Order: sequence, then C-alpha cells, then structure tokens
Amino acid sequence: MAANTALERLGEARARSGSALTLGLDPRLDRLPPDLPPTVGGLERFCRTVVERAIERIGMVKINVAFFEALGSSGWAVLERLREDIGPDRFLVLDAKRGDIGPSAERSAEALLGHLRADAVTVSPYLGEDAVEPFLAFPGRMVYLLARTSNPSAGRFQELVVGGQTLSQAVAGWAAERWPDGRVGLVVGATDPQTLVDLRARCPGPGFLIPGVGAQGGDLAGSVAAADGTAAPGLISLSRALTEDLGPDWAEEFSRRVRNWSDRIIRAGATLDP
Amino acid sequence: MAANTALERLGEARARSGSALTLGLDPRLDRLPPDLPPTVGGLERFCRTVVERAIERIGMVKINVAFFEALGSSGWAVLERLREDIGPDRFLVLDAKRGDIGPSAERSAEALLGHLRADAVTVSPYLGEDAVEPFLAFPGRMVYLLARTSNPSAGRFQELVVGGQTLSQAVAGWAAERWPDGRVGLVVGATDPQTLVDLRARCPGPGFLIPGVGAQGGDLAGSVAAADGTAAPGLISLSRALTEDLGPDWAEEFSRRVRNWSDRIIRAGATLDP
Repeated sequence: MAANTALERLGEARARSGSALTLGLDPRLDRLPPDLPPTVGGLERFCRTVVERAIERIGMVKINVAFFEALGSSGWAVLERLREDIGPDRFLVLDAKRGDIGPSAERSAEALLGHLRADAVTVSPYLGEDAVEPFLAFPGRMVYLLARTSNPSAGRFQELVVGGQTLSQAVAGWAAERWPDGRVGLVVGATDPQTLVDLRARCPGPGFLIPGVGAQGGDLAGSVAAADGTAAPGLISLSRALTEDLGPDWAEEFSRRVRNWSDRIIRAGATLDP
Repeated sequence: MAANTALERLGEARARSGSALTLGLDPRLDRLPPDLPPTVGGLERFCRTVVERAIERIGMVKINVAFFEALGSSGWAVLERLREDIGPDRFLVLDAKRGDIGPSAERSAEALLGHLRADAVTVSPYLGEDAVEPFLAFPGRMVYLLARTSNPSAGRFQELVVGGQTLSQAVAGWAAERWPDGRVGLVVGATDPQTLVDLRARCPGPGFLIPGVGAQGGDLAGSVAAADGTAAPGLISLSRALTEDLGPDWAEEFSRRVRNWSDRIIRAGATLDP
C-alpha cells in the first residue's frame, strides 16, 4: 500500500476508472454462473475473474465480509488471496459493518485494516466514537459510517426524531462535524432518494458510499449527484446487478455489464454539469 | 446440538453451573500467560485449556469473534476447533455484534449459527428487524440485541431522547414487544447501574446478557439482580477478569478465579431472596 492517504488513493482510483462505479462482491455458492461448481473453489475462481475483468473500468472494490465468513476459515483464506489480486492500486472497502467497543474494535481493525490491508471499512454508529476511533488509529485509512441504510426496515430507528432531526441526520451531522478531515464518510442507501439529497445538503463534506442502486432499484441520477457533489469522491456500489444471474459466457457478460453501468454513471454525471 | 430450544439449553446450562457466570473469551497474543508463546498456537492452547478448566462452574461461553478474526484464516480455524471443545451441552454466544441488511445478515447467520453452531449471537439494532430476523430463521437459536453497551461513548446515540424515552429504552421496548417468546434477549452493560435497573423494570421479559462487571468495574449486585429477576435466565460475562494478567501457574489460577467469581455471583444472588 502506498504511503499516501486513503482519500488520495480513492481520488486516484476514481480518476483512473472515470466514475464512482464500485464493484461490490457478495458472492454466494448458489448464485455462481452455471459452469462453475458451487464450491469454495468455484467461488474463488469467480471472484478472482471478475476482479481481473473489472480492472479497466473500476478502481474501487467493496467486499461484503459476511459472504466469505459464511464459508468458515476456507472462506477467510479466499478473502486473503483475493486481497492480493485486488492489489495496492485499487481502493478496497471491506463492508463488515462492525460496531463494537474499543478493545474489540481494535481487533476488528487489526483484522480488516491490518491483516487484510483494506483502505476503508464500514462501521455502525450505535456505540458512538469508541467504535470508530480504533479504525482511524490506522494511519491513512478511512471509515464509512452507516447513516441511512438501504434495507426495508432502515427507518425503524434511523428515522426516529431526536432533537428535531432524524437519527440518521444526527449520526451524519455528528460525523461530519467530528471528523472534518474527510476520513469518515457516510453510507447512504440509494433506495430513499429524498434522504440522499437531504443528507448531501446537510453534510457537504464527507464522501458517500452508496449501495442500493442496482438490484435494490435505487435512484441512479440522485446517487451520482450525491457521489459527485462534494470534494471527497463518492462510491456507487453495485454487486448483484453486476455479478448475479450471469449466463454460460459469464466472464464476457460481466465485462459488458461493467461497461454498461460505467457508461450510465458517466452519462448521468455529465448531465449534472451546468 | 440437542433438538430443544436455545432458551431450554440456556436454562439447563445455568442450572448445572449454578450461576449466571459466563466465560468471555477475548484472547490476545500479547496478553497470554508468560509461559505460552505469543503465537496462534499459544492462543489456541490457552483458549482450549480455559474452556476445559471452566467446565465445572461455567455452563455458558461468550466468544468475541473479532479477537479470532484479527488472526485471519488461522484464527477462524482456531474458532472452529474451539467450538468442538465447547461441545453441545454448553450454551455458546458468539459476540459478533453483527448488523447488516437481510441477504448479508443471512450469510452472517450461516457463518455463526450454521458453520459454528452457536446458540446465540449479538446483533446491533441500527438497521431494524432486517438485521435480526435472518438469525431467528435458524430454529431454536437466540439473538441478543445491543440495547445499552458498556463503553464510555455508549450514550452518544443510545441516550438520545426519542418520543419521551432514550434510544436504548426504545430499542429494548421494541424488542421485548416484537419477540415476546424470549428468543431476543438484550445486551445491557453493567457499567451504568441505573440503566440496568431501568431497562429491567421496563422490560421484564427478555433475558439480559450483561458485560462490564469485571475489568470494566460494573455493578455486580445490580447485574445479578438484573440477570436473575426474570423468567428468561440472564448471563453475566466476565472475560479479562478471568483470563488476563495470569501468572506462570495460569491454569490453576484461572480455576481459582472461576470459583471465586462463581461464589461471589451465587452469594450476591442469595441476598436477593426475600
């Protein structure tokens, strides 16, 4: 990993790949292309192939750690090899949604930022700064804090009103104020476009990590506006829309989907220019 | 794993061991006893020894997954072997504080309840029921939902007032009402005794998982009252107080600490009787 900061590496990766498109990896044994065996080996071959195929258009990779954990120690070993494939030039987010107290968060940071050398991790805000600081103790890395998630029950607590604003707004505003250096970005799902616009307006500083555009049907134009409308570059993560339901010619089909989504995001960005 | 439910297995484990004392495992290479090598092998030997030594007095084990993840795939392999050692008769909580949307939570459930066959897992509430239900989809297992944690910045969001109550109270009340069958317990730290009493009074149903009594200096008598004052048995988890700063005669010293804490908890419980 280069000596520069995660934000600089992210800026370079975005400039190279030309858009905020981020490869999300949520691989499942039962969703691999038809000619791959539903085994850990098949899953590894799939992941390493799409990582290689994506390189021309995608500078950022978001790996959902739970999908590898589900395979036990052999899944974790795949993650270790995959990390080598991704290489030091691409920006790697480990989407682990960790949220534990100090000493445990230190161990998670060691796992994700130390052992697996991620550039950034996702963290849940429920425990406050104790769950965030141990990740920032790794120099030059970033945290994306869950502000508004893309799931149906996201609003259960995130939309509760605390002191005249929603909990999502309180979390986002607190993070933006507490870490003005941009090392703490925000996870904001694309499935609630109004919240995306609102949080972008309230918090112009932090970069957004935006899931939910593909299979979950979130708002593409709004996501691009929220990802681009700030000094810190944003990420639009697509996983199932790129990697599931692929046919027999899956590697080539994946490449086509990458080009297609990359073009769509670039076009949506172009219409934002004044 | 027996066919009965996690709550039944928990009741049996508590009855056999005589108290709510739960062995918390947060092992660190740099905190192993002096005569063990600071390697994955040394850590494994330590964990397997204390699990074996604890069996007479402790029917419940809480493993903090982050401390094994930090060692990569070899740490995860230790966890797999340790799970065999713990056996089917003890109640195993995997303290992973997961909190992700449906499909990812399903994979976490597969990792923790499927692959590692835990009886219960800890889950963060920020994403609502989508983060909980996939764990309950495993028949006969439990979830402990984070309500009030034991860390210094716990109150950052957990004490915000939403609709006339704190967020902790809202989370606890919601869980108690939504899952009245006792399959969703609550994590309530012992470091804030007033909150412990308050949440126990508000939510008489769910079993509590109570960290923070040992090294964090939480309230023992209040914890025992909160763990015992309900139909669903509670757990009082001690980790560092049992397993850190052990001397050369560490296995014997660990056994003494277990007997000592077990006796203290039983005595504290006896004073609760009318």
